Amino acid sequence: MRSRLMEATVELLVERGFGGTTTTLVSERAGVSRGAQLHHFPTKNDLVVAAVTHLSDRRGAELAASAQRLPTGPDRTRAVLRMLGDHFASPVFSAALELWVAARTDPALLAAVAPLEQHVGREVHRLTVELLGADESVPGVRELVQATLDLVRGLGLANTLGDDAPRRSRILDEWARVLDAELGRSAPRPGTGRAERDEKEPSR
Amino acid sequence: MRSRLMEATVELLVERGFGGTTTTLVSERAGVSRGAQLHHFPTKNDLVVAAVTHLSDRRGAELAASAQRLPTGPDRTRAVLRMLGDHFASPVFSAALELWVAARTDPALLAAVAPLEQHVGREVHRLTVELLGADESVPGVRELVQATLDLVRGLGLANTLGDDAPRRSRILDEWARVLDAELGRSAPRPGTGRAERDEKEPSR
Repeated sequence: MRSRLMEATVELLVERGFGGTTTTLVSERAGVSRGAQLHHFPTKNDLVVAAVTHLSDRRGAELAASAQRLPTGPDRTRAVLRMLGDHFASPVFSAALELWVAARTDPALLAAVAPLEQHVGREVHRLTVELLGADESVPGVRELVQATLDLVRGLGLANTLGDDAPRRSRILDEWARVLDAELGRSAPRPGTGRAERDEKEPSR
Repeated sequence: MRSRLMEATVELLVERGFGGTTTTLVSERAGVSRGAQLHHFPTKNDLVVAAVTHLSDRRGAELAASAQRLPTGPDRTRAVLRMLGDHFASPVFSAALELWVAARTDPALLAAVAPLEQHVGREVHRLTVELLGADESVPGVRELVQATLDLVRGLGLANTLGDDAPRRSRILDEWARVLDAELGRSAPRPGTGRAERDEKEPSR
């Protein structure tokens, strides 16, 4: 029953936003009686805070599952970035976004959301370092991994105002090329990559 | 009076979020009678949609003013990125974020916010290209400028859950170094830059 309530809360956050998510709608959606729901979660904030935890577990599990399907070889960085880009453009991101924005002006919610968000952030960072095979002891590499995650967060936000998938792919493919070069792996791609640019700009 | 109402709406979006911004609070804050306010803006959405326009003008004006103060020379890229980073971490960004997220689940608001956001996005892109002196006819450069703007948007979002200025500066300084290299300007900085990394990674 708890799981049904959590899923219903996340679905409603995605479909109606934080303001449109009411305890009545959650109990209807979950098929749980008002009495039973109120016994477990007396207030909307109790429900939403529990859903935050549920949501971060789900985000971690989704990412780990996607990571299993990544290719190795020269296309790996691009595949890692596209995976991250898709993750931050998913409904789960929209639900998290609703909570972040609501928490910005709600101290009680912020107290629950901020530490969980830090935890998720650290886990996603660790996973990204591992998937990219990045060596953070090299100066600047840690910042570029962080930049990559802030980039996909920004792309996720842009995507909420309208489907942005083609633009996202172009940007992430170019970022992958730069990242491979910076991580000490050359990845010129005919027609779009560094090789062609070097021809045009011999001063480099 | 209109300007006072717009400013009050933006302030309340920053302080209390979209859900906490009511027409009553706006009229109190602006020192405008309920009657006069309702005459100009019969509903909350009328008020908020007008404030979106006001806000995008203000965002453009703030950026243009900051751009006037940028240095020339080797530190310019870093200064441009820090300026953009600060802009996307400002209260004006928080107000815009409230509108974006509310618009995600409110079709009437989305119809007003999406075209304005596209307009602002194009203007900021154009300004960034100009400030960086980037040549978008070179393959990949347009995507790197877009990535830069999605990066600062992501950093702005991260900043709403807690002040993130030191992390933001480290990330943007590193990105400035990479961007200068990609744009055909070398910018090694002792101790943190490409020069040191090249020593550690002779294969590059």
